[in-house]
Amino acid sequence: MSRAPLRVAVLGAGTVGREVVRAFLERPRSLRTSDGAPLELAGVAVRDLAKAAAGGMPAELLSDGPAHLVADPKIDVVVELMGGGEPARTLIAAALAAGKDVVTANKHVIAHHGEALEAAARASGAQLRFEAAVGGGIPVLGPLALDLAANRVEAIRGIVNGTTNFILTAMAERGLAYAEVLAAAQAAGYAEADPTGDVEGADAVNKLVILARLAFGVWLEPGEVSVSTARTDGSAGLSGITGVTGADVAAAKEAGFVLKLIASAARVAGDDRGAQVAAAVRTTAVPGESPLGRTNGVLNRIEIDAEPVGRVAFSGPGAGGGATASAVLGDLLAVARDLGSTWAGRPPAIRGTVVAPPVEPAFAGPSGARYPILEAAS
Amino acid sequence: MSRAPLRVAVLGAGTVGREVVRAFLERPRSLRTSDGAPLELAGVAVRDLAKAAAGGMPAELLSDGPAHLVADPKIDVVVELMGGGEPARTLIAAALAAGKDVVTANKHVIAHHGEALEAAARASGAQLRFEAAVGGGIPVLGPLALDLAANRVEAIRGIVNGTTNFILTAMAERGLAYAEVLAAAQAAGYAEADPTGDVEGADAVNKLVILARLAFGVWLEPGEVSVSTARTDGSAGLSGITGVTGADVAAAKEAGFVLKLIASAARVAGDDRGAQVAAAVRTTAVPGESPLGRTNGVLNRIEIDAEPVGRVAFSGPGAGGGATASAVLGDLLAVARDLGSTWAGRPPAIRGTVVAPPVEPAFAGPSGARYPILEAAS
Repeated sequence: MSRAPLRVAVLGAGTVGREVVRAFLERPRSLRTSDGAPLELAGVAVRDLAKAAAGGMPAELLSDGPAHLVADPKIDVVVELMGGGEPARTLIAAALAAGKDVVTANKHVIAHHGEALEAAARASGAQLRFEAAVGGGIPVLGPLALDLAANRVEAIRGIVNGTTNFILTAMAERGLAYAEVLAAAQAAGYAEADPTGDVEGADAVNKLVILARLAFGVWLEPGEVSVSTARTDGSAGLSGITGVTGADVAAAKEAGFVLKLIASAARVAGDDRGAQVAAAVRTTAVPGESPLGRTNGVLNRIEIDAEPVGRVAFSGPGAGGGATASAVLGDLLAVARDLGSTWAGRPPAIRGTVVAPPVEPAFAGPSGARYPILEAAS
Repeated sequence: MSRAPLRVAVLGAGTVGREVVRAFLERPRSLRTSDGAPLELAGVAVRDLAKAAAGGMPAELLSDGPAHLVADPKIDVVVELMGGGEPARTLIAAALAAGKDVVTANKHVIAHHGEALEAAARASGAQLRFEAAVGGGIPVLGPLALDLAANRVEAIRGIVNGTTNFILTAMAERGLAYAEVLAAAQAAGYAEADPTGDVEGADAVNKLVILARLAFGVWLEPGEVSVSTARTDGSAGLSGITGVTGADVAAAKEAGFVLKLIASAARVAGDDRGAQVAAAVRTTAVPGESPLGRTNGVLNRIEIDAEPVGRVAFSGPGAGGGATASAVLGDLLAVARDLGSTWAGRPPAIRGTVVAPPVEPAFAGPSGARYPILEAAS
């Protein structure tokens, strides 16, 4: 029994795309369908053809027209690794509408357009997988959808953004100021030239919205998820980790806490459908001795409270080319096995409403910021 | 589109079996095939009919003839939760030979007869799933087989036995002697009346053999995996945690270590097929500040080093009725979705050879035991 090769187009050849292409070139035997047919790299869309070829990408596969690759009837699966909003969303939607399976690491597109893309995938029967969008290489969406399928998830929380955790860790461990660490993180490649999406919390919100899809069966509107920390004087709070001061970090440490950017979502009591979710991404005072408090640097950790399992946790590298490529390639093998979309086996999602979680108890920093305290149980 | 109910027989109504039955009775809507057909509890095999009925099990479903349930043509899926060697092995083998899918939490049978049972399942096309055999409710075999499928696993290590970890934790935290803690653990239900299988390491060996199947694609012989700790005088070492003294625990703490029963397996360099695995279950000196060193009480933690993902870790409750039932029910839903056996998508296993891992560097305890030191990286 054998079948024709599954032809894959990779859109984007940044850090992750290059690792995915490398796997096709160096470990082709590891990329096969369950009946032994090869997965074939049939095209790679890049911005700059000359630069990509000079960087060792196979010149005969390169294209600067991603839409042509998506439309090419010879392409079976589209791996979208361009990131950002457009043209990624349009390309993913076009592929799904054409019945092509899509694997993506694009948390922005999935969080902001997940509801429409889920509908498009269900309508055409195409598979849409996005494990790489949350936690880099850490398996978390798959386990939620599959291994924990018999559970009722009550709450989920975690450190899901490596850049902000790197900055907060360096501030805590080396007593440095925010601006100083941010500049160092940018120099070291741990923060982007425009770090807004990370430091103000939008990246973590996107990941939380995607986690909530698998945990509670709802699509939340990212814009409804608060990223603000309250202030004692009642003025508008910080967004994400911006405005966290060295003095706040030191005072928190003195009180037995570390400040962490925590993404959290919990089922609202009495709402059996899970349509209301108490969700936020906030700089939080976490007990220093807790597993989340000890999650340092660019590591991610995601904790799931569910019935009957109790609390399970997943940790590891939440970013980086190799780690993220692991998730992309895992999804690609799942697509090759026709295992369905990331949500396969779960009912279609409903639209959810975001409720603000309680801000008390809180730890008041010298800057006037009031950081909610993560309950000791975690 | 609908299909006939999938009829399930549960063999065994101990801690886990009762939780599985409870899910059928209390949350039947959560147990459906992907096309909406119900999973139907069609029989429960128990040892003592009267006692089970008095305990609230549905009397009309009870049977004291598990072999009859397995042979019953009306049964589609067998959930084996009796534990131990026989008759569990024979019943699982009979079900697979008859083409019936099997879900089991039986680490002893899977570790000792996995090779034959895999062959039987492949021959008849039946699905065999055993996520619950390792780490209770923590998803680990599924993620290894599926989400991490594109990786080459280099090493795996963990705390996989809650009873011994409870004992070692209590010795370290409360300065108690081994015998004293064991008696307390037995009284509290954390250790069995005959604790041999836990404290001498056989339970952890079984789990390690099963992890190695998914990590390296080999079945190892449990009897070849050492559970011994060396002694400075060259005499025969301890088995598992037996013989660990309060003085050893205290001296280890003084040196910055905690003693943990660590199950570890690593690919042997140069063996690309993974046929040789350096595997052992040994009381180990673990850096106190490391995540494994901080895994206390009945928690389990499993770490996987793989390329390209790096190190990912899974933690949570490794035992208990609810946690283990979560894994059993997850497998049952996977069987209902025809997702295949736990190893689905991976090539058939080969027979592997166990190599003894290095015992140096080691920490010498006052008792004369030499505990291998876990490398600082973990």
